[in-house]
Amino acid sequence: MRLGRFELEGRRGWAVLEGERLFPLWGTPFEGLARTGEIFLLDNVTLLAPCEPTKIVALALNYRDHAAEFGRAVPEEPLIFLKPPSAVIGPGEPIVLPRMSRRVDYEAELAVVMGKTARRVPEEAAWDYILGYTCMNDVTARDLQKKDGLFARAKGFDSFAPLGPWIETEPADPHNLTVETWVNGERRQHGSTRDLIFDIPALVAFISRIMTLCPGDVIATGTPAGVGPLRPGDTVEVRVEGIGALRNPVIAEKD
Amino acid sequence: MRLGRFELEGRRGWAVLEGERLFPLWGTPFEGLARTGEIFLLDNVTLLAPCEPTKIVALALNYRDHAAEFGRAVPEEPLIFLKPPSAVIGPGEPIVLPRMSRRVDYEAELAVVMGKTARRVPEEAAWDYILGYTCMNDVTARDLQKKDGLFARAKGFDSFAPLGPWIETEPADPHNLTVETWVNGERRQHGSTRDLIFDIPALVAFISRIMTLCPGDVIATGTPAGVGPLRPGDTVEVRVEGIGALRNPVIAEKD
Repeated sequence: MRLGRFELEGRRGWAVLEGERLFPLWGTPFEGLARTGEIFLLDNVTLLAPCEPTKIVALALNYRDHAAEFGRAVPEEPLIFLKPPSAVIGPGEPIVLPRMSRRVDYEAELAVVMGKTARRVPEEAAWDYILGYTCMNDVTARDLQKKDGLFARAKGFDSFAPLGPWIETEPADPHNLTVETWVNGERRQHGSTRDLIFDIPALVAFISRIMTLCPGDVIATGTPAGVGPLRPGDTVEVRVEGIGALRNPVIAEKD
Repeated sequence: MRLGRFELEGRRGWAVLEGERLFPLWGTPFEGLARTGEIFLLDNVTLLAPCEPTKIVALALNYRDHAAEFGRAVPEEPLIFLKPPSAVIGPGEPIVLPRMSRRVDYEAELAVVMGKTARRVPEEAAWDYILGYTCMNDVTARDLQKKDGLFARAKGFDSFAPLGPWIETEPADPHNLTVETWVNGERRQHGSTRDLIFDIPALVAFISRIMTLCPGDVIATGTPAGVGPLRPGDTVEVRVEGIGALRNPVIAEKD
């Protein structure tokens, strides 16, 4: 099933997506899937980021090839950082390259969307706490990441967390999905979630021992090798097999 | 004026605090200060964390003496990190020492609470965007901070962001306030906000160039020298002059 959030004439809400049609829900899918009875055409609405996380917990160095491209060892334990909710944008919204940075990179990732409050969840129960999966672009100001050592600035700018286009609740096998970035129609990044160092249940278990995950919170599972820069005028697309394509234009920050 | 959040018989809300009395508000102070007409006694309610931040932006190394105690250079620009909303607790709630860490420290800080949505605010306008000030304990798992290099785990555990006891909207001079930690009645940390490397308007301007700050968001301005460990059974108090004392018991995580 595909779940998403839409805007139509000022109204915002959740919906089930089937082909070209969209079936609005009462409330959120965290409470249930009661349809309002309306039917909209996908072409007539704007798709928003498919959830409203209270936090995005992201993984550093969770693919061997990506760790290698930065000359970093593979971590013994998951290495996490946070992206703020203010960084979230939806499909089609522009990624704004800040004047503060000279080098901003795309990073394609499989994002896990939590469906229930999760606190100290054991690995074997992790799947029960997941609503579904979407695409995330973990946009990163590479120069500021290097300068600061900490990631909050480099990965925290407004528009640096594109999410979408929707949540797929039952992809075939979340540990065997191709993850790609395409820039202006050219493939730049290509990996598979089968190469995740820490898999999805391990991440839910580890993170939920630290901090309570809330419905709609996002775990961004890390990026494979092949990260590279974005320039004003580019169109960048994160594609995750079995989910969809998250496409965003890239613009420069105005004065 | 003092603003706070309270709970009474399952009801939660904002209020103006005057001496021993509490005057509930309709809605939040971000919309205005309309009192409901009720009067409660402070003794009869539970004070909650005085705001519900969508993010906590905290400062690393914003006091010279604290940078020195870690043998670190003073940064050229503010160095920020994020604490998740799930880490927030109120006055009197326990700080839980996680089994994952062997060394958890207190860090007393002056916290700025935003009153309006702030995006690219110039220094000279920064004061207009601030609702007031409260105390924060930037609780930190020192061993995990060192191990990870990134701060999200070390500073992101549930209960690692005690806030309160209330928001003071007009302290005498926010750049001349004593900041202290007391553990079991003994003073352990003592500094003054006059020694902030980057002052409050500089922080609001810098952070709001990166990320939009929302009403209720918190900027934790950094800690002076003297950080040290907490143990189960301790009572830790962060005192900021002109604001108040934020007191929390310390307990060990259960199995």
